[in-house]
Formats: sequence, structure tokens, C-alpha cells
Amino acid sequence: MARIVQKFGGTSVADIERIRNAACRVKQEVDAGNEVAVVVSAMAGATNQLVEWTRQVNRLHDAREYDVVVAAGEQVTAGLMALSLQVLGVNARSWLGWQIPLRTDGVHGKARIEAVDTAAIELGFAEGQVAVVAGFQGIGPCGRITTLGRGGSDTSAVALAAALKAERCDIFTDVDGVYTTDPRIVAKAQKLSRITYEEMLEMASQGARVLQTRSVEMAMNHRVRLQVLSSFTDAPGTLVVDEDEIVEKRIVSGIAYSRDEAKITVQRVSDRPGVAAAIFGPLADNAINVDMIVQNVSEDGKTDLTFTVGRSDLDRAVAVLESCRPVVGFYALKPDSNVVKISVIGVGMRSHAGVAKQMFQTLADKGINIQVISTSEIKVSVLIAAEYTELALRALHTAYGLDSPG
Amino acid sequence: MARIVQKFGGTSVADIERIRNAACRVKQEVDAGNEVAVVVSAMAGATNQLVEWTRQVNRLHDAREYDVVVAAGEQVTAGLMALSLQVLGVNARSWLGWQIPLRTDGVHGKARIEAVDTAAIELGFAEGQVAVVAGFQGIGPCGRITTLGRGGSDTSAVALAAALKAERCDIFTDVDGVYTTDPRIVAKAQKLSRITYEEMLEMASQGARVLQTRSVEMAMNHRVRLQVLSSFTDAPGTLVVDEDEIVEKRIVSGIAYSRDEAKITVQRVSDRPGVAAAIFGPLADNAINVDMIVQNVSEDGKTDLTFTVGRSDLDRAVAVLESCRPVVGFYALKPDSNVVKISVIGVGMRSHAGVAKQMFQTLADKGINIQVISTSEIKVSVLIAAEYTELALRALHTAYGLDSPG
Repeated sequence: MARIVQKFGGTSVADIERIRNAACRVKQEVDAGNEVAVVVSAMAGATNQLVEWTRQVNRLHDAREYDVVVAAGEQVTAGLMALSLQVLGVNARSWLGWQIPLRTDGVHGKARIEAVDTAAIELGFAEGQVAVVAGFQGIGPCGRITTLGRGGSDTSAVALAAALKAERCDIFTDVDGVYTTDPRIVAKAQKLSRITYEEMLEMASQGARVLQTRSVEMAMNHRVRLQVLSSFTDAPGTLVVDEDEIVEKRIVSGIAYSRDEAKITVQRVSDRPGVAAAIFGPLADNAINVDMIVQNVSEDGKTDLTFTVGRSDLDRAVAVLESCRPVVGFYALKPDSNVVKISVIGVGMRSHAGVAKQMFQTLADKGINIQVISTSEIKVSVLIAAEYTELALRALHTAYGLDSPG
Repeated sequence: MARIVQKFGGTSVADIERIRNAACRVKQEVDAGNEVAVVVSAMAGATNQLVEWTRQVNRLHDAREYDVVVAAGEQVTAGLMALSLQVLGVNARSWLGWQIPLRTDGVHGKARIEAVDTAAIELGFAEGQVAVVAGFQGIGPCGRITTLGRGGSDTSAVALAAALKAERCDIFTDVDGVYTTDPRIVAKAQKLSRITYEEMLEMASQGARVLQTRSVEMAMNHRVRLQVLSSFTDAPGTLVVDEDEIVEKRIVSGIAYSRDEAKITVQRVSDRPGVAAAIFGPLADNAINVDMIVQNVSEDGKTDLTFTVGRSDLDRAVAVLESCRPVVGFYALKPDSNVVKISVIGVGMRSHAGVAKQMFQTLADKGINIQVISTSEIKVSVLIAAEYTELALRALHTAYGLDSPG
């Protein structure tokens, strides 16, 4: 007997037939004698519809009310999944975030999990009951519904797996594993049988949508064995594991891209101490994450500051910056959402030089201008104009020798 | 300054534009200096979709999970309404059943309200905050979501109005008041400017969908001043008031019909003491309401027993009865959902004889067979074949002199 967490993404529960199919997979684990917690996303499209409504009503929405609206999607799936399991003769009940409770901080719209109380769920396990948990949602310090950000159900699943000390956390999705890059764009993309937590973390945070960043981070910190697999096939998926479990290491394991970026240039700002703080402080106070930053050479004591934020935060970021214009003092703001971030990722970079150079050269050869650069120990990212996305991905995939099975 | 409860039904919040329109009506009351609690239904169609999903998954569903699924509809509207009010500059926040808390008993799917704790909402009032309450839902004794049955948002509104000691409870719907009968069927139906609680109660419980039965009952018990009006026009609606507030009394005030009925005949059951209990006990245990009952004359110690249940309970009722067949002992069950219940209603019946006779004669003149009859002090109901619905309503409307303004 083992404890398993199974998480089903939006496409895996997109309609009643698929929910039934997912329920059958849960039943297999139950029949094998396992204690199972199931985490469900909203039915595919449901969250988009709910988000769209909140935007139509109130573009600069109150995140607390946004959370009330969007959390409804997972609530529906949780109930339907419990009912589907009951039809199969499986004892099951649904758990909403506030019922568990899954406690988060108070940052509505992108809350962080603080504690998962598994006592009630484990009481259910003792009675042979499957726990069907609404993903993506928790309860904040004021007793209001919080949500964990897009893809947050992955994080719910990993947090639950960690709290339950589960043997495995299976993430069922519409792809059958993690690929060297997006196979819809690069036909020669290869499925990875294993990937390290660190690489998966960079892949996720650089735009590969297969897992949410924080879920990987949490899996790494708690050493939760993660498996990404398809709910539509029985093919083995990709295991996310420790680096020492991987024998053959490529220098570059994957290439990610993110269209969720937007660039803001603050023009002709005073180049004096404290200006960066005056700009980035208010953004942080409004829970707007800034990713890449580049500052131009100063001229006449004025400089241009360019940085990226999440595209969905662009309007709010501009509003926040305009409100501190009197304090900061700048000539103009130039927002630009017509950008894409491309990242090459691999733990092999730690021991191999020249990865960044090869990237810049490959892009230059295709006539692609690099707007912003950022790097980490196992990653190089560049911001380029959105229309070059596919060209850049294919060129880089070939350049790093990823076109054939490794 | 007064305290007002405004309730918006599904068609009044059917899309973003209508939610905005409803929010404007709330703002009018706020601008007039009133403390306002808004109760919202799910967007029109949303509940049907959710119910349909639960049926597709699991026809004999676990009512606790059914409640989890269907309560999501009102949750969405509550968040969207709060956001809409905020856009208009109105301080507002949403309240879900479990947050208020609005406590109910544990009869999932048709729970009864036991207590409404208004402390938190009144704290909000003190800060000028509008409370937007998700209708139809509460929290049961085990901390799980309960729902109040179809149309339950009316009950939420009246319960809240009673608990808040509100001056008025306005029920905004898609009709501009209570009519002598359904104007979609009888073109000459007249809008009533006033109706007594008792009549409204019978109208609602006999199928007039404008208000949920329990909401009227509760309004009567707590003397909540109820107004039914349209959210699409500014015409005055119908006031539901005490009998002594109505000067001119017609003998019959309205004619209601209900297609939500189904008939079950238990054939050749033993005509001995305890049989009725053996049949109706298990139905009651399964929270299936039985309405009209008729028993045939006994023959050979056997009799036929015919009664009506809600159409949505028909499958469950048959299943329950089949399961107690060994105890009860009967020849066959004949379920029939091809029926309609027609009721004539009026407090004037208390002092006037002949109302029932006129009903039976009118139907007989049209060749309509009466299957079951039931009566109360201010009402006569008959069950007839569904295809006669329109014919019966029009004939009775004319017969009782309701075709012209009273």
C-alpha cells in the first residue's frame, strides 16, 4: 500500500467523458490498494471564461473578488469527480480549499501555500475514502478564498503530496511528458525520459507550460517524486528527479519560450541612487513581478530603464508607474507586449562554457535582434520580437544538437 | 437611512451587461443613503448546466457533491457583482454561504436555513460596505456546502432580510410582478398590485415560479415586506402583504399550474393498516415530498394508491418503492410524468362556497378528465393530463372573471 497523489489538468477533465476516464485511472490506484488523493483543475476553458468575465466587469479588478469567481471552476470539477468515482463504486468526497483547510498567504490571485492540514483527509483514508481536492485554491488569513495563479493546481498537488508524504505525485496532462521544446513548433522535439528538478524549474519558469514553476520548486524542496504523463495514453511520462539519477547529461536539455512577457521602457529617468528602488519598490508592493532588467548607458544624467513584467500585469504596472511619476521623474513609459522570451536550459552549462555565445551567434545568423539578456547558472534567456519565436526555436534546437534522440 | 435587501434572479444577472444594470440599481439605493445587502442567483442557464453535468455523471447522485457543484454558479455571480459595484465606486464585497455563515440543516439539495449570522455583514454596513451574498447556498452541520433547492435564492434573500430586520426585500426578476396566471399562456392575465402572503404562498407552492414557496412562508412568518418587480423596467411591481392591507378582495386571485409533478400509482396493494406508512415512510426518509394522494375503493382486500411527487424525484421514488416491495407487497408501480397540476387560489374562498364546483364544471365542459383532487382553505388543485394545460388555464381564467382588471 502506498500513498499517491494524482493531478488531472484542465484538458484531462474537459468534459464528462474525460472526467469518467480520469476516474478510471484513480480507481486503478485504489484497486491496487493505494491511498489516493486526486487534485483537479477546472474543466478546460472554464477558467478562461471566468477570468474573461472578471475582465469585462472590471479590468483593474479586486483580486479578492477575482479569486471568488475563478475558484468556482475547480469546485465544479471536484464535485463531478467525486460523483464519477462514486459511480465506479469508489468511496470518494470532495474537498475545497477552505474545507481542508489549505492555508495560504493573503496575496490574492497568486497566493503561496503556507500549510496543508491533512488530518481530515487522512481520517478519510483510514475509512478507504479517496480525497478529491479542488486544485488552485486555498483560504487566506482573513477567511477568504485565495487562488494560486494560473497552473496553481500543480502546486496544490505537490503541496498535498509533500504534506501527505506521498510516494509519488502523478501530473496528468494533455502531453505525454516534457519535451526538449514545444513539439507544436519544433517537429523534431524529443521527449525526455528524465529531467532534473533544476532544469524543470527553469523550463517551467521560462515558459514551458507543462508544470507550474512553484510546483517544481516545491517538489524539489520536499523531494516529491514527480511524474508528468498523459491521461489519454498509457505511455510512460517524464520523471522529474535529482541530478544524480541522470547518467547521460546533455549540455542543453531544453529550450523554453514564453509569450507571457511584456516589456516596459522608462525613458529618460534620472541616473541617481534610489531611482531603481523608486520604480521597483511600488511594483513589488503591488505584487507585480519584474523579471529581466537592463539599464542603458547614462547621458546628461538621464538613462532609459527597460524591464519585463507578466503580460497580464502590464496595465497595472503602467498604472502604478504613472502614479509614482512625480516621485521618480521620467519622460515617458513605453509598454510593449509584442515580445517573447527564449531560454536555453541545461545543468551541463555548469561545466561547459560557450552556451551563451552559441545562442547569440545562432540568433545573429538568422538576423534576430536581442532586446534584453539574462542568465543564471543553468540558463540563458533573451527577449526578442514575438514574430521570430518559431524561427529562433527551430534554429536553436538544431544548433544545440537536440533534433535527434539523446 | 433604511436597510434594504435586493435580490436579483438568474435572468437579471444573465450576462455581464445585466449584472452591470443590476449593480446600477444597487447603487441607487446606496446613493439614497441605505444599507444594502444584495442576494444574487446564478447567471441564467448556469445552474441548469451544472445540474445537467451531475446527472450525466451520476443519475442517483450524492446530494452533498451535487451541492458542491451547483453552488458554484452563485459564487461566480457574487464575485462579478461585487466587482461591478466597485467599478461604480461602491464599496462592496462578496459573501459565500459558509463565510457569512448562513447555517442550514444537513438535507443536501433542499436544505432549510437555521440561522443567519449577520454580525460580519453589519460590521461591513458600518463601514459603508454593500454585502453581496451568494444566494441558494449555506453551510450544513458538517461544514459542507448545502443548497436550498431550486429558486432558493429567494429564500436566502428573505432570511437575510428577516435577520437584518430590513425595511424591504425587493425581488428583481424577469417579470414585472405577480399575475393572475402565466401571461405567456393566458394573454388576458392581469398584474396584481397586491397579493396576500397566504395567496402568494399557494401560488408559489402550486407552481407559479415567480417566488420560491419557502421564501414566501418565511416572509409571512417574519412579516418581511416583499416586492416582486422587474429589473428591466421601472414599473411598480407586486407587493406581497398582510390580508388586512387589501381592500377589494376577489374570490379567486390567481390560477397556478405546475409541470414539475409526476404521478405514481401503486397497484393492488394490501388494504390493511400500516401500508400507507410502509409506502410513505421510506419516501419521507429519502427526503421525497409527496403532495396529492388518492386511494381507490378496496376490492378483494387490495387497492390502488395514487400520489404525486416532484418530477425530479420520480426515478428515486420508484427506486425507493421497488426496494420496499417485499415489505409492502404490491402488483406493479405505474409512474407517469405526463401530468400537470392546476390550482385556483384566493383568500375569498374562505367566505364563498362553490369555487371547487365551478372548477370541476368548467373542466368537464371542456372534456378534461380530473385524475386527482386536493384542496385547502384558500385553494383547489386538480391533476390533469399535461396536454390540457393551456386549455384548462384559459377556461378557468375566464370562468373566474379574471380576464379584465379587478
